[in-house]
Formats: sequence, C-alpha cells, structure tokens
Amino acid sequence: MNLRIGVIGTGAIGEDHIRRITNVITGARVVALSDLNVNRAKNLAKKYDVKFYVTGEEVIEAAEVDAVVIASWDPTHAQYVAASIKAGKFVLCEKPLATSKEDCKRIVEAELAGGKQLVQVGFMRRFDSGYRQLKACIESGEIGNPLMLHCVHRNPTPGPKHTTEMSIKNSVIHEIDVLRWLLGEDFKTAQVLLPKSSSLAENGLRDPQIVLLETQSGVRIDIESFVSCQYGYDVQCEVVGETGTIRLPDPAAVVMRSHGKLSYEIFSDWSDRFVEAYNIEFQQWVDGVKLGVVAGPTAWDGYAACITADACTEAREKGTIVPITMPQCSAFYGR
Amino acid sequence: MNLRIGVIGTGAIGEDHIRRITNVITGARVVALSDLNVNRAKNLAKKYDVKFYVTGEEVIEAAEVDAVVIASWDPTHAQYVAASIKAGKFVLCEKPLATSKEDCKRIVEAELAGGKQLVQVGFMRRFDSGYRQLKACIESGEIGNPLMLHCVHRNPTPGPKHTTEMSIKNSVIHEIDVLRWLLGEDFKTAQVLLPKSSSLAENGLRDPQIVLLETQSGVRIDIESFVSCQYGYDVQCEVVGETGTIRLPDPAAVVMRSHGKLSYEIFSDWSDRFVEAYNIEFQQWVDGVKLGVVAGPTAWDGYAACITADACTEAREKGTIVPITMPQCSAFYGR
Amino acid sequence: MNLRIGVIGTGAIGEDHIRRITNVITGARVVALSDLNVNRAKNLAKKYDVKFYVTGEEVIEAAEVDAVVIASWDPTHAQYVAASIKAGKFVLCEKPLATSKEDCKRIVEAELAGGKQLVQVGFMRRFDSGYRQLKACIESGEIGNPLMLHCVHRNPTPGPKHTTEMSIKNSVIHEIDVLRWLLGEDFKTAQVLLPKSSSLAENGLRDPQIVLLETQSGVRIDIESFVSCQYGYDVQCEVVGETGTIRLPDPAAVVMRSHGKLSYEIFSDWSDRFVEAYNIEFQQWVDGVKLGVVAGPTAWDGYAACITADACTEAREKGTIVPITMPQCSAFYGR
Amino acid sequence: MNLRIGVIGTGAIGEDHIRRITNVITGARVVALSDLNVNRAKNLAKKYDVKFYVTGEEVIEAAEVDAVVIASWDPTHAQYVAASIKAGKFVLCEKPLATSKEDCKRIVEAELAGGKQLVQVGFMRRFDSGYRQLKACIESGEIGNPLMLHCVHRNPTPGPKHTTEMSIKNSVIHEIDVLRWLLGEDFKTAQVLLPKSSSLAENGLRDPQIVLLETQSGVRIDIESFVSCQYGYDVQCEVVGETGTIRLPDPAAVVMRSHGKLSYEIFSDWSDRFVEAYNIEFQQWVDGVKLGVVAGPTAWDGYAACITADACTEAREKGTIVPITMPQCSAFYGR
Ligand SMILES: [Mg+2]
Ligand SMILES: [Mg+2]
Ligand SMILES: [Mg+2]
Ligand SMILES: [Mg+2]
Repeated sequence: MNLRIGVIGTGAIGEDHIRRITNVITGARVVALSDLNVNRAKNLAKKYDVKFYVTGEEVIEAAEVDAVVIASWDPTHAQYVAASIKAGKFVLCEKPLATSKEDCKRIVEAELAGGKQLVQVGFMRRFDSGYRQLKACIESGEIGNPLMLHCVHRNPTPGPKHTTEMSIKNSVIHEIDVLRWLLGEDFKTAQVLLPKSSSLAENGLRDPQIVLLETQSGVRIDIESFVSCQYGYDVQCEVVGETGTIRLPDPAAVVMRSHGKLSYEIFSDWSDRFVEAYNIEFQQWVDGVKLGVVAGPTAWDGYAACITADACTEAREKGTIVPITMPQCSAFYGR
Repeated sequence: MNLRIGVIGTGAIGEDHIRRITNVITGARVVALSDLNVNRAKNLAKKYDVKFYVTGEEVIEAAEVDAVVIASWDPTHAQYVAASIKAGKFVLCEKPLATSKEDCKRIVEAELAGGKQLVQVGFMRRFDSGYRQLKACIESGEIGNPLMLHCVHRNPTPGPKHTTEMSIKNSVIHEIDVLRWLLGEDFKTAQVLLPKSSSLAENGLRDPQIVLLETQSGVRIDIESFVSCQYGYDVQCEVVGETGTIRLPDPAAVVMRSHGKLSYEIFSDWSDRFVEAYNIEFQQWVDGVKLGVVAGPTAWDGYAACITADACTEAREKGTIVPITMPQCSAFYGR
Repeated sequence: MNLRIGVIGTGAIGEDHIRRITNVITGARVVALSDLNVNRAKNLAKKYDVKFYVTGEEVIEAAEVDAVVIASWDPTHAQYVAASIKAGKFVLCEKPLATSKEDCKRIVEAELAGGKQLVQVGFMRRFDSGYRQLKACIESGEIGNPLMLHCVHRNPTPGPKHTTEMSIKNSVIHEIDVLRWLLGEDFKTAQVLLPKSSSLAENGLRDPQIVLLETQSGVRIDIESFVSCQYGYDVQCEVVGETGTIRLPDPAAVVMRSHGKLSYEIFSDWSDRFVEAYNIEFQQWVDGVKLGVVAGPTAWDGYAACITADACTEAREKGTIVPITMPQCSAFYGR
Repeated sequence: MNLRIGVIGTGAIGEDHIRRITNVITGARVVALSDLNVNRAKNLAKKYDVKFYVTGEEVIEAAEVDAVVIASWDPTHAQYVAASIKAGKFVLCEKPLATSKEDCKRIVEAELAGGKQLVQVGFMRRFDSGYRQLKACIESGEIGNPLMLHCVHRNPTPGPKHTTEMSIKNSVIHEIDVLRWLLGEDFKTAQVLLPKSSSLAENGLRDPQIVLLETQSGVRIDIESFVSCQYGYDVQCEVVGETGTIRLPDPAAVVMRSHGKLSYEIFSDWSDRFVEAYNIEFQQWVDGVKLGVVAGPTAWDGYAACITADACTEAREKGTIVPITMPQCSAFYGR
C-alpha cells in the first residue's frame, strides 16, 4: 500500500519533494497540499491530481493523509510539527525544526509526552553516499580516533535575502548536524572567526566566516562558510584520525583535457549536489513510516542543531568562545 | 497505474531485477515469474507474492502481464523475445538479444512485420551517468570530432565457466553497444590482439585480449578486455577529439591517506559499479512502456552488437582484420 | 670562479648541504668545516677533501672562506651569524635565525649597522616549485584577493626529543615564513587550538595543534600541525580567494591500481619532499652571493618569523588570542 | 676537474645544452662549439667564452675537448659520432643516432672495433623520475609480469616541416626506446593504425597514428601519436601487469577551483615537461665519462630504436603487420 502524504509548503523545495514522491521513490504518493501562495498551490494540486487545502492544519488533519512533509516558510515549521504530533502523524520537516531553541524544546517535550517518535528533520546529508562512507570508515577504526575535522561549505552566490546570521543558521547547520552524527557526540564550545569580507559580498554581509567547534571529547572542527565564493557549490569534509585521514569524495565528473588544462566540472547548485541524498532520505523515511519508526534525524537532533547554531551566532556577535550546554537527552531518543 | 511485469529467469540477475522493480523504481510491480529452477522460482514467488508459472511462454501469455523481462539462460533469450513480440507485449531482454546473428535477424524481422517496436535490449551502460556525460560532451562539440577511443574493461576474476570467446561475446559486447551509441555510427573492421596470457588465467583462457574496431567514418577504438586482472572491476573510456579529450569518471570514493599512501577503493563487482545505470534503465523502460514507446537500445541495436561481436570472434580466431558488413537498417528503427 | 664555502655544523643537515654544494649545484665548493662532534667532522673533511677547523669562528675567519653555511645546533646560530656579519661574509643560516627574538633583533641591528645585507635564513619552502606557482597565481589575480588559507603540516613521527613547543618553533615556523612571503604581509593575532591528543603522541606531547593566524589586512589562516600523524610527511596549503581557490600540488607519484585500490605513495620524509627546494635555494644563494646580493629570506624575515612563533607559543600557553606587534621594518630591508 | 666539452650544433637544443652544462649541472664546462650557422655560433661562443670552430670535426679533434655533444641536423649525426669514436672521445648524441639503420650499424661496428663503449644516445626519458618509478615498480614485482602498455604522446601542434613519417621517426622513437628499456626486451612485430585525420592536421599529414608493438615475450603495446592535439604536450604510459597497473604521473601542478571547474595546467612544451630528465641525463653522463663509462642508452640502443622505427614506417606504408628482426647483440653491449 502506498503511504499517502500531505505536503505543506509548495515553493521550490516543496514542489521538488512532490515530484520526488510521485516520480522517483516508491511506496508513497502525495494526496494533499497547501501553501500561502494559493495560485501556485492550486496549479500543483491540479498537475499532480492532489487535493488542495487552504491551511497546513487542514492537510495535517485530513483523513486521507497518513504522513506529513513540511517545506513551508521556516518560521511556520514549529506550529506544523506540533500539529502533526498532536494528530499522531509522522512528519518529515525540512530543516530547521524551528527557528528558536525554545520552540524546538516544546516540540521535543510534546513528542515525549505523546510517547512515540513521529518527527524527522530534513538533514539530508546523513543519507549522502559520501558521508555514509566516511562514517563507515571512522567506525571501522581504519584511521584511529578522529582528532580534527576540516570542513568547507561554499555557495557561488547567496540567496536574495541572505544575512550574516543565515550563513550559520541555514547553511552551516547542515555541518552541525552531519558532524554530530558522524562523530556520535555533542559540541562543547563554539567560536567564529571573521576573515575580511569578499569585495563581492554585498549589503554588509560578513562573508566568509569560519566556525570553530569543539566536541565534548575534544575533537576540533573548523568549518569554512563562504556563500559568495563565485566558482561553484562545493562541500568538503576531511576527518583527521590518529593514523590517517579520509575525505568526502568530490562528485564523479568527466575529466576533460583541453585548452592547456585538465579539468572537471563542479556543481553550481546544492540541489544537484545532494539530489541522491534527498531521494534516499525520502525513500527511507517512507519505508520507516510504514514500519512505524523514524529512521533519520529526530526532533532531538533538530533541537541539538538549533542550540549549537545559536551558540555559534552568539560567538560571532560577541567575538568570544562560547560554551555549549546541551540538555540531558532522554532515553526516549535512544542515546 | 502500475505496470504489471512478468519476469522470466530468476537467477542472480533476475532476482535483482525483481527487487529493483519492487523496491527501487516506481510505477511497476512484478506479477508473474518462471524459471527452470522451480524451487528457487517458487520461493521468490512466495517472497514477493507473485504468481509462479512453469514456462516462460505462460508468463508471456498471462492476461495479468503487461510487459516482460527476460533474464534467463542466454540461449533461451531468442525464443522468449519472439513469443513476446507474438503476444504484442513490450519486453526488456538482458543482453544478448540472441546467441546468433541469425536469431537476432529473425527477431528484427518479426518485430518489423508486427509493425511496432516492442523490444529493448539490456545494455544498461547507455543509462550510466558517466557515459551520458561523455555523450553530451561529444555532442556539444567541445572536443571537436572524435578520432580515437581508448577503452578498458577489467574484471578481478572470470566467472566459473568463462571461455576465451566469452570475453568478447559477454563482456566487450557492452563496449560494442555503448560506443556505437556514443559515436552514432557502425563499425567497419575488427581485429583482435592477443597479448601473452596472464599466468593467473586458468584452463587455457586467453586473457587479456585487445579488440580493435574501426568505425565507418574512420574513428579508431582499442578495447582492453582483461577478465582476470585481480585488482578490481574497472571500466575506463577515453574519447580523443580534435581539440581535447574526455574520460569516463571513476566512481566517487572516499580519499584515504594512511600507511604511506593516498588511496581510494575500486569496485570489485560490476553490479555495484552499474547499479544506478540499471535503476535508471528500468525506470525509463517502465515510463516508456506506459507511453507505448521503447526508449532504450532496440532489437536492431542487439542485432548490430551481435554482428560486431561475431566479427571480433572471427578476427581473433583467424588473426586477421575482418570487415564488418552491417545490413541496411530499416527506417522503422529510426536511423 | 667557484664560491668557497665554510660549513659550520656537520650533522645530518650539514652533511647533506656539503653533498649538495659539492655534487648537485654549480659554482661553489666547500673548503672548510667544523663541528662539536670532532670525529664526524674530521671524517667528512677527509671524505670531501676539506679543511677541518676546531671552532665555527675559525671557519668564518678563514681567509679561504668566501661565504658561510650554518647548520649547527639551533642555540649556536645567533653567535655564528653575528660573527659572519662582523667578518663581512655572506651567510646562509638554517632556520631559526636565533632562538630568541632578542637575539634576532641584535642580528638585524648589527647587519643594519654594517650597512650591507649579508644574512639569508634557510626557509627553503620559498624555493619550492609548488609554493612559487601559488605565489604567481595569487599575483596574477586569477582568484581575486586571498581571504583564507587552510594549511596542513604533518610528520609521521616526531623526532626523539620533540616537545609541544617545538611543533610551532621548529615546524610551523616554515608556514609562518612562507605564508608571510606568499601574502606579502605580517600577522596581527595568533591563537592556538589544542584538539585532544593522539594516543600515539608520547611523553605528554600535545599533538596535534591548530595555529590560527590573522594577517594585518584580515586574511585568516589555519595551520594544522600534527607531528605524529603516522601515515607520512604531508604538507598542504589551500588559498581561498574571492573568486576561486588554489592548492599546493602533491608531489608527482606513480598511480597504482592493485588490491582493490587506486593509490599513490606519500613521502615519509621532509628532506625528500623538499629536496628540489633545497637545491634551488642553494643554487640561487650561491648565484646571488657572487653578485653581492641576498636573494632569499633576510635576517628581518627570520626576526619576523621568530616574533610570530613566540606569539603563537604565548597563545598556546595562555589559551587566548594574542596580538602580534611587529616592529617598524627599516627601508634597508626593502619593505 | 671539470670535464671539457665540445658542442656541435648550436640551434635551440644545442644552445639549451650549453646553458645546462654551464649553469645547471656540475663538473663540466663547454670549451668549444661549431655550427653551420656561423653567426649564431660565434655569438654563443662569445656569450659563453668558448672557442668557435668552423667544423664539427675540428671540435672533435681539438686537444682541449675531452668529450663531445652532438645536437646538429639529424643527417649529420652519424658522421660526427663516427669521428668521435675515431678520436677515442666520449660522445653524447641527440637522438637519432643516425637517420638510417645502415649508418647505425656502421657506428656500432666501429665502436666494437675500437673495443670501448664511447657513445650515448640522447634518449632523455630514461632519466625522467616518472619512468624511473615505473621501472622500479615493475622490477619490484608489485604488479606481476607486464602484459600490456597503453601509451600516449601528444603535441599541441607539429613543427613547421613535420611529415607523416616524422611522427614515428622523431617522436614515437622516444617511446620505442624507453619502453624497450622499461621492459628489458626487444620488439617482434609492428603495426600502424591510421584513424581519420584531424581536420586541424594540415598539408596531408596523417595525424593521429596508433603504433602497435609486440615484444619478443608477447607484451602488447599501443602508442597513440597525435602531434596536433591542440590542448597541450601530454605523455602518458600505463603498464598493465598480471595483478595491477601503474601509470606515469602527470607533472605536479597547482589545483585551481574557479569558474565552475576544478583544473590544473598541462605543459604546452616538451622541453618544459622533460627539463629535469635532461638535467639528470647530462649530469649522469658527465659523471660517467669521468669514470670512463657510458651510463645511459648506448649506440646499440640507438641502432635498435632505428630498426624498430623503420619497421613501423614500413608497417604504416604497407598497412600490414611487419616482423622486426633484431640482429644478435654483442656481449660488448652487455646483453
Ligand atoms: Mg535540507
Ligand atoms: Mg546487461
Ligand atoms: Mg630549513
Ligand atoms: Mg632527446
């Protein structure tokens, strides 16, 4: 039986997820959607032969909806996740889980009170083949204990309303989650270095930034965030262990020799870079939901990422090293 | 509506295709199967909740079967393809289309007589992302006209009953098809060089072999076939054009620095190397069948590959340069 | 005419320089040497047919010595450099110029008082082909203004008496000099991060360490120092500019495919890694001396490196961000 | 004592060798030169303070000349080598040793009659670090017995008077020698494939060409020769052994990420690509001559290369597989 999914938010990402559920993965179909942009939503509803609802809450409560995907405006995530929990329905919420840690906490508490894990956060990198290979390699012991991670997260140009704060909250947050998962531990301190800004970073944007994290066991992480690097979308991650290092692979690309150079193309767009990760994320989410389990990053993971990102923001604003205090994680979340 | 598929032949590849249709791609399900190995087939029928038939012909004729996949023993391909055509059903036949060019010709003629393309041959490399990038790059004109191709096809060890002849008929035939597709033209001559055999090639096997092909326009191709190369499964393809060269990418792999070496893993198995290609092949075949079209390599392509492989075999046996005479292709096959 | 060189200090490095001057470069020969280890020195004197002197001062003052190479124990560098200046002879002193910034300052003042540049410090990386390509590329403007540098300096195992302090003073000091040269500016602040130590770092050694430097214009640099990385000697440098990035090339090495891996060797020894740089350094030094000029890193550069390394040490000890105050550089040093 | 060298032929290569002997290597100096272009030769004689002679024979016979370098017009090589043997002087002759195998044979016989090896042929690739690594790797047994070699030799554009014949005689001859040295055996057959010519190959030039060689033990070699490949000077060599493969490294080059591509530069000029090989070749030649030995490719190697190249030319002209008959090599040449 196909899992019947309601999608809240049908902007670029939401539409892409509808396409993915409909055409790419197996075992699910979209049955309901809603968006503030009613025209766009109705057109998509027509195109995909899906019921349109005026509000996200109606989608969540609709009898024909088994599970919910949230891809709406960030500040609305928390309310829809809460409503999904209340309705007892599985929900895959695009990151961030919420825009404040207080909201994250409320979600965690509500889920805990309900007694059943229902929430998955859309940190798709955990499903990327390269990161999975890194994790397997770390766990194999081949490079000994990890001691340092050197990471890079570059975009050719920032989105239209990108702010200095968003570089961490919306972009580096992917590293925050995936590195926490890779290492299996939380962070202890955060610091942010501000190199001189690129002359191509407009409107007072501080870009690039370097985020320094320290894990509870003392692993040191540096993350370069550079949202106006011009040349392409580029994600790098090197894990330095006691006896060796491993690097995230660059995507496979044709090697060309021409005009005096050997070259290969670098993606220009994050959605191309992680398209496979999204596909696997959705397939595994659907498969898990059918079995009644959340098989990806939980509400707690979303909460932990939010706490960490907030500490980074504070560190950037104050120019100091900021301690990160992680609340005790309930056994409910399996840690 | 899901396309209902009957699978003939449930050995390793057939079973993998059942899994693929059921769990990986969208829009299709397996409804019937058969295999000479009745026990194995019945177990799979049970596992996947699919009807078991005693003969392939029964699968083909079953009312609930919309389309057929053939993954049986090579010498049986021709009869099942013929029966599928007779039944007016779309059929995806694993390579080879048939074990003799006479059989291929009969299939082509039957399809032509039926007036509708129904047959696709399982040359999955045409769906590999790397080859697709190569083709796009050639067609873009970025490297000028192709003049030479240098290809490598290596397996760590041959299958249990591998013969000198099979290196071309079962292995290099993938290059024969994909290069024909890449260049958009047929071959004019074939020659086979026999280097001294590896001491690790057993039972009189001549291994490696080098196949030299010349296209009708004069492009020169060398294909190293080495089925006992020991170190891994490795497929390489370099296209040399008038102004530059392009190479098939190696699969993306974690880069490790340890024990005095930088290294990354090479696949040991062809099915891992081309798993994505198989997935895309099946998804596009299903999508095409629903629209009533064959969107991959046709019966004619299977025929052309067989003629070319036979010429290579003759060239190897005689030690001479053998001309390849390709029959006139009907407009029916769109060339 | 051959430049006649006296070598002070004939340990491993000193002996290697004697070999280099004698057999590798052109236009110079060794005519005198001395070392505290008299037996070893006398043997080398015999082997290379060179005069042995009891003290370094005697070498410097010998009438047949045109120029001096210092490769003795670090704490003796300052006195021999001072004596060379006093004798009016050109001197190439292995790094460090001196073990304290006060001594460096005295050398600079003595040279200034003498009115002629005579001192070159043995920062050989400036002569490495890879770093030279990086510098040319930065100056070409191809990647815009540099904003960040990510550097790595790894040794398989530390020397026998290696201390936590020496990781910066003896090893990272190479980065300090070469990055200052690469960017053409001095440093403003230093910070040192201490990841958890490798379990393979013995005797209380803090290893790895991460040195963070900020240049006067705001370029941010991170340097991983890891002297017990086990796997090899590995130096990496990536410059991130406003429109692109460039990386120091790995040394050219045969690419092997075997045992399921593609691999190539990494040097295990710094002297192999930079052998060409040493050869060029010496050839250019000899050529420059014959023309009466110092064509490499000056006493001032040695002084600046020492000040920076001291600030890093203070930053590590205090766990704070330490400002770096660079004295005004005299026009004598051409800045 | 410096070896005193006379240089015959002071075109681009000859002048480069004068510079090399004077400024780069150690233990030798140029004392005499001659060239048909008297003005050019006299200017160089002045610049390097060297005696000018009208004829090559005078250079060879000059009392102050210890050893001879021949870099004159190819058809004159044989006579100058013969004169050097007659004078009992060591001679380094740029390839080819002679323009006909009859001339090569006469040189070999003269040297044999003289009873002392005096001749080295300028096959500089044997001194290239990459080829040396390949040879060491083959001899280590790490990849088992070599079975196949895939080679590429590309120039961006041909010289002004380049002919179809010269692609083998002047260019592929480098592969002929270096592969013979790499494998330690002679060739048994030759064949030449002519792909369709590049539209950028002018004046009837057949370009590219593919040379197929078979060694006496049955190793199969393919060499792509493409003198108008446009994009750069590119030499590749892959050795396929029974258990693995090795590839000649590309020269180390800065890796740049910019404009949507990762890229690095490819040399445009063979003299840049092999500059280090030339330096080592000359240094080792000088060192050997001082010890009274020829430490590089001998007259016999020049003869064997000429025989092989002639067979390739015949194979190209006739379009057939041509047997290569190598005369019995005297023990004098140590084989
Ligand atoms: Mg996401
Ligand atoms: Mg197949
Ligand atoms: Mg040094
Ligand atoms: Mg040469």
